[in-house]
Amino acid sequence: MMQDTHISLAHGNGGRYMRELITELFARYLHNPNLDTQADAVTLPWASSELVITTDGFTVQPLEFNGGNIGTLAVHGTTNDLAVSGATPRYLTLNVFVEEGFEIIQLERIIASLAETAKALQVSVVAGDTKVLRRGEGGGLYLATTGVGVHTATAKLGIKQIQAGDVVLVSGSIGDHGIAVMLAREQFGLRGELASDAASVLPLTRAIWDFTGLRFMRDPTRGGLATVANEISQATQLSVHLQQAQIPVREPVQAVCEILGYDPYYLACEGRVVAVVAPEQAEQVLNVWRALPEGQDAAIIGTLKQGKARVILHTPLGGERLLDELEDDPLPRIC
Amino acid sequence: MMQDTHISLAHGNGGRYMRELITELFARYLHNPNLDTQADAVTLPWASSELVITTDGFTVQPLEFNGGNIGTLAVHGTTNDLAVSGATPRYLTLNVFVEEGFEIIQLERIIASLAETAKALQVSVVAGDTKVLRRGEGGGLYLATTGVGVHTATAKLGIKQIQAGDVVLVSGSIGDHGIAVMLAREQFGLRGELASDAASVLPLTRAIWDFTGLRFMRDPTRGGLATVANEISQATQLSVHLQQAQIPVREPVQAVCEILGYDPYYLACEGRVVAVVAPEQAEQVLNVWRALPEGQDAAIIGTLKQGKARVILHTPLGGERLLDELEDDPLPRIC
Repeated sequence: MMQDTHISLAHGNGGRYMRELITELFARYLHNPNLDTQADAVTLPWASSELVITTDGFTVQPLEFNGGNIGTLAVHGTTNDLAVSGATPRYLTLNVFVEEGFEIIQLERIIASLAETAKALQVSVVAGDTKVLRRGEGGGLYLATTGVGVHTATAKLGIKQIQAGDVVLVSGSIGDHGIAVMLAREQFGLRGELASDAASVLPLTRAIWDFTGLRFMRDPTRGGLATVANEISQATQLSVHLQQAQIPVREPVQAVCEILGYDPYYLACEGRVVAVVAPEQAEQVLNVWRALPEGQDAAIIGTLKQGKARVILHTPLGGERLLDELEDDPLPRIC
Repeated sequence: MMQDTHISLAHGNGGRYMRELITELFARYLHNPNLDTQADAVTLPWASSELVITTDGFTVQPLEFNGGNIGTLAVHGTTNDLAVSGATPRYLTLNVFVEEGFEIIQLERIIASLAETAKALQVSVVAGDTKVLRRGEGGGLYLATTGVGVHTATAKLGIKQIQAGDVVLVSGSIGDHGIAVMLAREQFGLRGELASDAASVLPLTRAIWDFTGLRFMRDPTRGGLATVANEISQATQLSVHLQQAQIPVREPVQAVCEILGYDPYYLACEGRVVAVVAPEQAEQVLNVWRALPEGQDAAIIGTLKQGKARVILHTPLGGERLLDELEDDPLPRIC
């Protein structure tokens, strides 16, 4: 085993320490037939005439929280972007930016759970790179992951496929990730049972991506549900009407939001899907989701209508509230 | 145009400021038919039964230096890893970690030259992500790029293909990048004509990758020529014998190394190729390289022999010096 307990600049210099870090930590957890830590690039079999690709950076603080850590988040976040695009994830690349002085045992814990998460999704980490940042310049640990997947969905998905009359669904409660990360920061002395919703959405997307009426899916991460709704209204120039009473928000999330003045509609989720579906198939999609463990709390939450491009939240008492595009960041470093 | 002059946390929150940053800066320079800044992932045509993939992080300091900047370096570094693997680069993904307070005009300059470099190589940036780091936590700017290429070389390349008797070549002078970055740090009051060698090696690799006697190529970046030689000796369990008199080192690089006590064999290059070739084709490969503008200073610098796995530098006076695996980092944040 490695004799060092903390990351030093020498772990990033291309020499012996870096080789030890790679073989004894990264390769130990991430090994797979395609990963060749001695190669500049790897050659992978590819059986499709298309590839689907996405990339994401991760800077969540703290690095570990109830329900996940930056490593599991990187795998879920990146593969979820493929999943909502109608693709089955196949390969990941991993960039690690780690600060001098970082505890190797924590890095190991994070990489081990990243590896486990990838394995559960049958995704291989096929290439990686590590850079060591000087003490004080690295914020601990940042990850960047690129995901490559194969197009699988039958429906032609895309924000431009959305039409007036379409129905908006969400696969589960919103804001759990945002609140779980915030509570993990221990700034407020609040504690609770609240765990991040960070998870793969692949079971949810796969279950519905052959519906001919499926128009669009997105995971509401940074900026939450309200941001996805604004993206939809801007891209389609339609009004998005959301029914507050239908949007699932867990009790403790609602409670923390009320105490601290957060708006759950802008909080990040990391394991939910927003789907837009033709009206005649919305109930069917809802039923498919509700039959899944990941989709028990799924709900039909709104509709698309002709009108000004904006997002209107209809309150239970019949009021209307505009959900504007996000300007101030309620919770930075959430993913 | 954007009204802001500096990056703020709001540029990373998923809302309006981030959308402006994406459309008015990133998409403006990086636009191409495949890039869809509204999508979670993009679908790309793929006509090969294989794909070649690599990934790299970039933390060079300073961000701009004579001969390049962190943006051009990211494109060259990543596509070079594909090129030395026998692949033609096609697509790039780009992760940006930028610190709160970073000047937008500098970010624009870097992204513009990154885009130009990619365009010159006929490579598209097809996906990206930006994270804003709190002031003091981001070291200015870090990039992570993943490259996808199509396998093109005829020769079966790999470090394991190397045999005793094979010949080692280098495509040009070594250490220029390392010294150019160091001088740009202005720590030493030294100035000179020295520019980084940062460039695409694709013309060099493409020119020789159909040679049946080509065994292996690598670009000597972090840790330089000595590190590549050590990787070869460890992977093959052969001795690498290098002839000091044959290794091209530019006069000013040599001079700075002597003043400051650096060893040029460990300094990073960002536009050179080390190739290992069957002895009967070494002269031919050399001639092909020397006919190219990028390969004018190419040289045969050593041979592989049975014996202990180590790297021996033969001095002009007949002495021998062991080039050990790197332990201390002579120049951190060089790429």
